[in-house]
Amino acid sequence: MTAAIYARRKLLKTLLISRDIGGQVLLTGYIENYPGFVERSGMALADILERQAKEFGTEIVMGEVKRVEKAEGLFRVISDEGEFLVRALIVTGGSSYKRLNVPGEEKFFGRGVSTCATCDAPLARGRAVAVVGGGNAALQGVELLAKYASRVYAIHRRDRFRADEILIERVKKMPNVEPVLNSEVTEVRGDKKVEGVLIRDVRTGEVKELRVERVFVEVGREIKLDYVKHLVETNKIGQVVVDRAQRTSCEGIFAAGDITDLPYGQAIIAAGDGAVAALSAYDYLMEKR
Amino acid sequence: MTAAIYARRKLLKTLLISRDIGGQVLLTGYIENYPGFVERSGMALADILERQAKEFGTEIVMGEVKRVEKAEGLFRVISDEGEFLVRALIVTGGSSYKRLNVPGEEKFFGRGVSTCATCDAPLARGRAVAVVGGGNAALQGVELLAKYASRVYAIHRRDRFRADEILIERVKKMPNVEPVLNSEVTEVRGDKKVEGVLIRDVRTGEVKELRVERVFVEVGREIKLDYVKHLVETNKIGQVVVDRAQRTSCEGIFAAGDITDLPYGQAIIAAGDGAVAALSAYDYLMEKR
Repeated sequence: MTAAIYARRKLLKTLLISRDIGGQVLLTGYIENYPGFVERSGMALADILERQAKEFGTEIVMGEVKRVEKAEGLFRVISDEGEFLVRALIVTGGSSYKRLNVPGEEKFFGRGVSTCATCDAPLARGRAVAVVGGGNAALQGVELLAKYASRVYAIHRRDRFRADEILIERVKKMPNVEPVLNSEVTEVRGDKKVEGVLIRDVRTGEVKELRVERVFVEVGREIKLDYVKHLVETNKIGQVVVDRAQRTSCEGIFAAGDITDLPYGQAIIAAGDGAVAALSAYDYLMEKR
Repeated sequence: MTAAIYARRKLLKTLLISRDIGGQVLLTGYIENYPGFVERSGMALADILERQAKEFGTEIVMGEVKRVEKAEGLFRVISDEGEFLVRALIVTGGSSYKRLNVPGEEKFFGRGVSTCATCDAPLARGRAVAVVGGGNAALQGVELLAKYASRVYAIHRRDRFRADEILIERVKKMPNVEPVLNSEVTEVRGDKKVEGVLIRDVRTGEVKELRVERVFVEVGREIKLDYVKHLVETNKIGQVVVDRAQRTSCEGIFAAGDITDLPYGQAIIAAGDGAVAALSAYDYLMEKR
């Protein structure tokens, strides 16, 4: 959205193609670290971004990009909503939540298993729940769920959480939160509904069951690049390699946000890099004129 | 401010030293391109940033840093409000407005000559005014001043403005705006108050006078680095050289914002890079432990 705002400020004809407006921000219940933003909901932030992008005249197509091809100095963007010929492309596909890929997870997905604690926290009211993961998203989930659930198991396979200390401290003070470290979930159990998770102690191999009725999987993100990875250099974990001007290895293609090889995934960083990508694309187009 | 917010999210003991809160943003009357921010005043944005930084426990000292010295693995920060020993330093000094350095400018500074159109626009009501400069700040100034002034001369020494096209188009449509291109101001004239500016045509050398009562100087920014430039590498135009993790050439010193060598100076970019600088400083401190 920021790339679109900046491209339009430069009066570039700007098309934004996406399946949704907001991406992961939509799934973020409260945002407390986006500077200048005092409303707390991710949906509210996405709304404002959309309004700003449209205000400046961005054309928005709700669709999915299937493939990008070079076409005589231009790029052909093939989507399920039609094809578009463009002079420059900014790839800002972001990332999506990873799954555990254990038995029972798929069976109960959306019916007891969720990748969005903040979306589904109210469903945990009065129940024992498990949160799987050790990062900020996981512990923010724990913090929120502790307000609804009778008991929250914070399950992480390492010996300490890797979230911000400020979050870890806050969560540790909550009386109904029980950290379960050095443990990985091997199965989500239940007949017609979730009844528990099997966890394995990664040091001893011992397996035991925690009785829970809801499981929140918050184990990180993955990116999708099938449509463009034949054109741009990626790193070992599949992220798009960019330079400081957000240029990819392919002239005319830029990238910003979680999809790039910067190790820090934060909305404010994606916004800043989106602005750089648009200004950089503008400079590229002016030079080509 | 964003670096402070992120440093505190990581529970680092965080000291912010500055002469003001907001810097150039304070002098920006309306902000229309900071994603997620719908209030329009720079002061409102600075207020929100300060509130967020304090909310997370940033200690703020209103003062000026005079010099930074290495001190046995630490840095000694010498300010007019005392000395501080720190493990890591994030330099975010930003930039400030340049002057024309022509006769009369200093004499009338603050009494007819201003570097902040948006601060002082109401003083232009009903008068003819000159705006000097061709970038976004200059043309945003022209646009605002046209609502107050009887006539606005937009003086720029090149043959076209370098602001965003969207702005140039808007400004050109305003009936009381007169672009004065290929021209530089050589003097601000007047007895007890500003009566006009002398402008020289850079192609012919011809000098003439424009009758104006207010002069707004919007010719770009400069940075101050005296306190730390003996420690970090800078480029030809004096900006701090940083890598993608906002590290300077000196281990333990990071930088973000207008003071760095990224060619694009925008609030949203400074915010994103400030977040990266803080996360990067945190990683550095954890590695050193």
